[in-house]
Formats: sequence, C-alpha cells, structure tokens
Amino acid sequence: MIEKLIEKIKKTQAPVVVGLDPMIDYIPGFLLKEAFARHGETLEGAAQAVWEFNKGIIDAVWDLIPAVKPQIAMYEQFGIPGLEVYKRTIDYCHEKGLIVIGDIKRGDIGSTSAAYAAGHLGRVQVGSQSYAPFDEDFATVNPYLGSDGVKPFVDVCKEYKKGLFILVKTSNPSSGEFQDRLIDGKPLYEWVGEKVNQWGLEHMGRDYSYIGAVIGATYPEMGKALRKLMPRTFFLVPGYGAQGASAADLADFFGDDGLGAIVNSSRGIIAAYKKEPYASFGEEGYAQASRKAVEDMAADLLQAWKRG
Amino acid sequence: MIEKLIEKIKKTQAPVVVGLDPMIDYIPGFLLKEAFARHGETLEGAAQAVWEFNKGIIDAVWDLIPAVKPQIAMYEQFGIPGLEVYKRTIDYCHEKGLIVIGDIKRGDIGSTSAAYAAGHLGRVQVGSQSYAPFDEDFATVNPYLGSDGVKPFVDVCKEYKKGLFILVKTSNPSSGEFQDRLIDGKPLYEWVGEKVNQWGLEHMGRDYSYIGAVIGATYPEMGKALRKLMPRTFFLVPGYGAQGASAADLADFFGDDGLGAIVNSSRGIIAAYKKEPYASFGEEGYAQASRKAVEDMAADLLQAWKRG
Repeated sequence: MIEKLIEKIKKTQAPVVVGLDPMIDYIPGFLLKEAFARHGETLEGAAQAVWEFNKGIIDAVWDLIPAVKPQIAMYEQFGIPGLEVYKRTIDYCHEKGLIVIGDIKRGDIGSTSAAYAAGHLGRVQVGSQSYAPFDEDFATVNPYLGSDGVKPFVDVCKEYKKGLFILVKTSNPSSGEFQDRLIDGKPLYEWVGEKVNQWGLEHMGRDYSYIGAVIGATYPEMGKALRKLMPRTFFLVPGYGAQGASAADLADFFGDDGLGAIVNSSRGIIAAYKKEPYASFGEEGYAQASRKAVEDMAADLLQAWKRG
Repeated sequence: MIEKLIEKIKKTQAPVVVGLDPMIDYIPGFLLKEAFARHGETLEGAAQAVWEFNKGIIDAVWDLIPAVKPQIAMYEQFGIPGLEVYKRTIDYCHEKGLIVIGDIKRGDIGSTSAAYAAGHLGRVQVGSQSYAPFDEDFATVNPYLGSDGVKPFVDVCKEYKKGLFILVKTSNPSSGEFQDRLIDGKPLYEWVGEKVNQWGLEHMGRDYSYIGAVIGATYPEMGKALRKLMPRTFFLVPGYGAQGASAADLADFFGDDGLGAIVNSSRGIIAAYKKEPYASFGEEGYAQASRKAVEDMAADLLQAWKRG
C-alpha cells in the first residue's frame, strides 16, 4: 500500500491528503435542508448531509490527489448513522481509486489493539466466513501503550499489505506537554520516533516502510530533525493551512528523493467556499471551490517538495 | 456521576466493574449456533451472538455490581452491526441501573476530541434538535496529545455531569516503554498523573473528582505511589485476574476511606465458565458462572478494600 501511495503521489504530483472531516458548520445550507427534508432533523439526517457533502467533494477532487483522510470522530459523533456514512465514504473513495487513511488514532492493550486492527485494516472471522468491516488502507495509531499495543496493528498490516501512521509529534498547540519532555536529553517524540523506525523495519516497502509517522506541520524544526532520524519513514503531516503552517515550513519534511511526506488539509479544502479567495464559488459551488483549493495547495507544496 | 458511582459501590459492597469485552471465543457454541441460524455467518450474526451473550451476563450480575465497562473495540471489529450492539448494550445496562464506562480510549486535537466527547458523553446538535448518540456515563481517554486534546472531554463532562478515566499507567506488559521513562527524575506516568489531578480540579464531586485515572493492577508499587500523588482521583484498575494481579496487589489502590478505586475484570468474569473453578456450570450455565465469579471477586477484593 505504501508503494501504491508513492506511485499515486508521483502521478498526481501532489503530496496532498484531503481531510474529510465534515463538521456540520462546513456543510452548505442547501445540503442540510435537503437532508432534513428527507430524514428530519435526526442523526440520519445529519449523516445524510455529511454523505452528500463528501460525495460532492470526492467527485470534484479525486483525480487530483492520491489519498483522503476521513477523521472518524466527525462521523462517530452522529452515532450509528454517522459511522455508516464513514464506511460509505471509504467504499466510495475506493471506487474512485483513492487511498483511504482512516484517522482513527486507536491504541490499546494487545488483544484489544488486535480487534481494532482486524476491524479497520484486516478481516474478522465469523464462523467459516471472514469480513473486512471498515477496510481502510492506512490507519493512525496512538503509541502511549508501547510496543504490545502497536504490534497487533503491524501484524495485521503485514498480512493484508496495509499501513499505519503512528502519532509521533502531533500538530496541536499543547502537543509538547508530554511529547517534548526530555528523557536522557532527548524529547519523548524522538524516543517514539525511534520505536516507529524499529517497528517499521518489520514491514518495509522498497524505499519506505509501510509503518509511517504523524508529524505536525506546525513544528518545522522538529520535522526536520525527525526526517533525519527516520529516513525510511513516510510522514503524514497535518496542520497545513487552517492550523497555521505554510509550504515553506514543510520543505524539510520531504526526503532527498522529494518524497517521504504527504500533507493533510481538512478545513482549508472542504470548507474553502466559506472564505477568500474561494468565496466567489458560493455555497452551490462548494465542491468546485474545494477543487481549486486542492490545485492551489498542490502548487504551493510543489516548491517545498521539489526542493527536498 | 462520580457520586452515583460511589453510592453504588457502597450499596453493593463491590468495587467491581465487569468488562463486557466479548471476544467470539468466549461465546458459548449454542449462542453462536442460534445467532448464525437466524442471521447467517455474517457480521450481523456475530453481533447478535455478542448481544445475547451480553444480555445473559447482565441479567445474571446487574444486582451485584455498580458498573460495567464495554470495550468498544470488541464491537467495532464487527463493523456497523457490532457498534449497534455496543449501543444496545449501553442502553440495556442503563435500564438495569448500571453505570456504563465506555472503554473507548479516544483522544485527538481539540476540535476532534470535542466531536468524540459530544458523541459519547454529551449531545450533538442537528438543526433545532439534539441527540446523545452513545450516552456512556464515563469514557476512557488517551492523554498523549496533552491538555488541548483532553479539555474538550472535561468540558462536556462538566456540562452533562459525566466523567472520565484518563490513561496514566496502563496494565499491559510494555506500558513502561514510554510511560515509565524518567523526566527530571520522575516517570512520565507521574507527570501525566499530576495533569489529571489538575484537570480534575475543574470538575470535583464531594470527595473525588469526576476526572479519574486508569492505573493497571499489574503495577502495585506504582499504584501505591500514584494513590498518594492523586488523593482526590478515582482509579479505574484493569489487570485483575486474567492479566495476573491479585487482591493483595490492590490494597494500596484504595484511599483511607476504603474508596477511590474500582477494579475491572473482563475475561475472568464473562468467560468464567471456560475454566476452573467454574467449569461445572457448563456452556448453558455461562451466565450463572459469571455471577459466581463476580461474587468471588467481590469477596476477594473486600479484604483489600477494607484494609484501605
């Protein structure tokens, strides 16, 4: 799956992930109105609006990008109907040939991580049959529980040729509270980074491992240091755009081959129509506004990427 | 909710949580057969078997215990039908007057944590209506992202009088890999513990905070140190029984008032019929075996508890 990701990045010339994190505020009024007219102001109605919103964006951007990253929380908040739309979104993206990174940030003790891994990346056995319940291509994983909480994910990835992005240095303002604390002179995120390296050796692609890392674009100096520490690790980089990072901040996240990183934008793409310079598209043109925002982001990143 | 938990612990004299973590291996063959006959060897069939299994156990033990802790991964692995049964289990436990601790171990950047918090502990707004999609009473939370990843959960708990148990020192073998690393002479889990204390001050009950901590029974010395460090924090203690800890290990997890901790057992209760001394109940008597296992666990803990 990491080979497919790299191939698609090369083909699209866009190391861009569109974050399908549909807050209800982002959804144009006409879509909400339609969904509520059919399903009422219910969880089903909200989920239907999310689905129509996603479908519009996917139809508008699929040919420009290698991958999408649905944030499961934004679906889970609407209960079962929301999770049904999470799954429908994954399936539809697959139909369009997109790689799906499930932003699930799961992580637990061994047997529990094994259940998450089977449900999201692998298959579960039911009597003589087996099923792939969610079937994302990559998933994000939280490392706080250590190796035995991560290994079941790695094992499932090996079996089904899937991949992970493990949280190393997250993009949020207080990520440093624990992640930056020095242990024997080295910040915790570097200790985690070294472990990710080690786990990654168990499941290598040609140039990069199937086991990647989440490194926030909002911390460019740390990204640079981690790039050196983890030369074979692909980075999933959140925090571009709405969270404040620019393309210039990202140059050092890429490897010498101009690869090694894929940059996420959520709000900046899917809610592009709500702000300049895309406001002229209007609500009805929200999906085309997203397309233009993806094109602009790809062009912006191309600099950083080519410099790498 | 913390007051209700304490009141129910006093009433039942059992600081026991039954972990509703139904691995398919735990489910008696006759229940699987019935469920597969009706729904086929499908995700729906697996979920139906889980539901019947849970219902049997809940009916057998509800009057003995204050709370249950369904592990969402064991439901999520069966996709949407599994998550429907997670919700049905929560609702049924509420009907029986049980407190439900959702073992979800979520945690993300601020806006995403807010979505998880709304979906699991609070309400989501859909037009003019609002809904409580999962409606657990407590949820477990992962602290790796720091304060701004945890605060949205605390805020929702304040609004809806719900509570949290934040991972501090987990029960698994490799929990020490990151959690035990020394930072300025103090292990990371103590730094996290101090933060939990601080977050907890924002949402105090009478004697204990609504914001609790997960501390593994498998690390009794650390539990003792953390009990001193966090006198107003309620502990959710996994690792008793199948994971290896005994009642003697747990004495120091309780406060001077004999309260302050609630001990989880999953496999040891729900799969009790599979091993001595409960094997004589047989498959058909699995629920009664669970009842006996709860009684034995409560008696075993009473010692540790009273000594506190």
